[in-house]
Amino acid sequence: MNLKNCTVSVFGLGLLGGSLAWKLSRDRAVKSVAGWSRNPETVRRARETGVIGRACATAEECASLGDVLILAVPIRSMEETARRIRPAAGPAVRAVFDLASTKTEVGRKLAPLWGPCYAGFHPMAGKERGGLENADPALFQGAVCAVVPFENTGEEALGLAEELAEALGGRPLRTGAEEHDAAAACISHFPVLVAASLALLAGEETELHPLVPLLAAGGFRDTTRVAGGLPELGADMASTNGEQIRRLAGKYRAILDALLAASPEELEALLARAARCREAVLAGKGTLSRKRG
Amino acid sequence: MNLKNCTVSVFGLGLLGGSLAWKLSRDRAVKSVAGWSRNPETVRRARETGVIGRACATAEECASLGDVLILAVPIRSMEETARRIRPAAGPAVRAVFDLASTKTEVGRKLAPLWGPCYAGFHPMAGKERGGLENADPALFQGAVCAVVPFENTGEEALGLAEELAEALGGRPLRTGAEEHDAAAACISHFPVLVAASLALLAGEETELHPLVPLLAAGGFRDTTRVAGGLPELGADMASTNGEQIRRLAGKYRAILDALLAASPEELEALLARAARCREAVLAGKGTLSRKRG
Repeated sequence: MNLKNCTVSVFGLGLLGGSLAWKLSRDRAVKSVAGWSRNPETVRRARETGVIGRACATAEECASLGDVLILAVPIRSMEETARRIRPAAGPAVRAVFDLASTKTEVGRKLAPLWGPCYAGFHPMAGKERGGLENADPALFQGAVCAVVPFENTGEEALGLAEELAEALGGRPLRTGAEEHDAAAACISHFPVLVAASLALLAGEETELHPLVPLLAAGGFRDTTRVAGGLPELGADMASTNGEQIRRLAGKYRAILDALLAASPEELEALLARAARCREAVLAGKGTLSRKRG
Repeated sequence: MNLKNCTVSVFGLGLLGGSLAWKLSRDRAVKSVAGWSRNPETVRRARETGVIGRACATAEECASLGDVLILAVPIRSMEETARRIRPAAGPAVRAVFDLASTKTEVGRKLAPLWGPCYAGFHPMAGKERGGLENADPALFQGAVCAVVPFENTGEEALGLAEELAEALGGRPLRTGAEEHDAAAACISHFPVLVAASLALLAGEETELHPLVPLLAAGGFRDTTRVAGGLPELGADMASTNGEQIRRLAGKYRAILDALLAASPEELEALLARAARCREAVLAGKGTLSRKRG
């Protein structure tokens, strides 16, 4: 079954679920888009604005309609939502994806419920502000979408996940759950803690030095941007990917200490290396883009 | 003497010196703009593109022309340049400013040379890439410009510094050197080390997890932006503001450790507080803006 012949049911209509539903609806990329949210007002608004084609009053109703089920609820509600909709989902279900930003723990809970239909799906895109009011059908344009198979995941589900990535304007990339979580901890989850620590430090320092907020400029704004986001999201990431985050924290402390102890000449060399590392990491996207034509 | 009747001599035509000279020249905000750079080719290009009105072959020539002298050379060359031009500067000199991003150490060296004419001047603006080729007359638009008096600084020099801030489109703010350096360490210098540590960590991790660069997205790009800049600038900031940076590093480590040790509920609360601190620090600019009308 191709994605374009599927009804896609979206559970959770926040920034990610709302943007995904909106993009599929707007482009008529699938047969129809059904949506459910814990908040009935959100469902009503999503229907009125064309984000979804069919408003569902219950998660069970939403599950009964879909060929492809997409779980876009907070990480802490993933398992509960998945268990709740399992009995209502018909035998027609071809694929079940979660959009969680960590994969190992979520997959451990969801994979046994859904067998070959289940795969992890993580579009590498976000915004400082969440919620349907910030949803944007262009959110995933050019974004890498991690497609994460588990032990029993079937090829049909993986194929649909890759079609979904392309329908969103993104670029599918298959990867294992642990590999995903290690890399995501490095470029997304741990940086949230680093940025939050800087923001808390600036808050403390403002008490001592009232000049701090008066001098704050673009550098501080950018360095702390990911700490301006949704605290519950950060807490979910950290609590389900804690092992990787603690591993990275150890290495990070050693690196920061080396910078602090360096002579000016050594520091200049280390900062030059840091700039090259940053370029290389950010250029990695270009490589993928070229590889995939 | 008002700024508009002054010849302004700019020493160093990189991002800051070039942008400042260009803005004054373009707006005809001063009588004339003379410029010198260690690199004669830079002086030639600055003259050709209208960044400066008068190209100087030597720093001495540039000093002999100016009523207001602006030192926009790297921190490590500040003292040498200041000593070199001192004998050439005429009795007409009304003010001497340095654009260094740290003030205490630079002022300790420059203030005795220039007496009442000297004040520190630090526009809170920058870019990832330096050099005249990235200069932009709009760089300082809306930027706070710290105006830093030293023991012997006279009112005429301070008045000219405030006029200069306004001529650049920025907002002057008088502050002591130590207060400046404490606040700048918090919102600018220490964040460079934090961002560089993250970039180096991502570089190390890429060796273990080739997925890292493929998942890197806007969050990593923004959090590490200030580590993409000029390594010599970072090294200069760190080497002349090391005491403040080390003080902050101690507090920062304790905050990061608390985040790493927090339960998910505690972490959510800490991340919410971090987001509020960030908002408050960034809103500080708005306050200044309103205060000054």
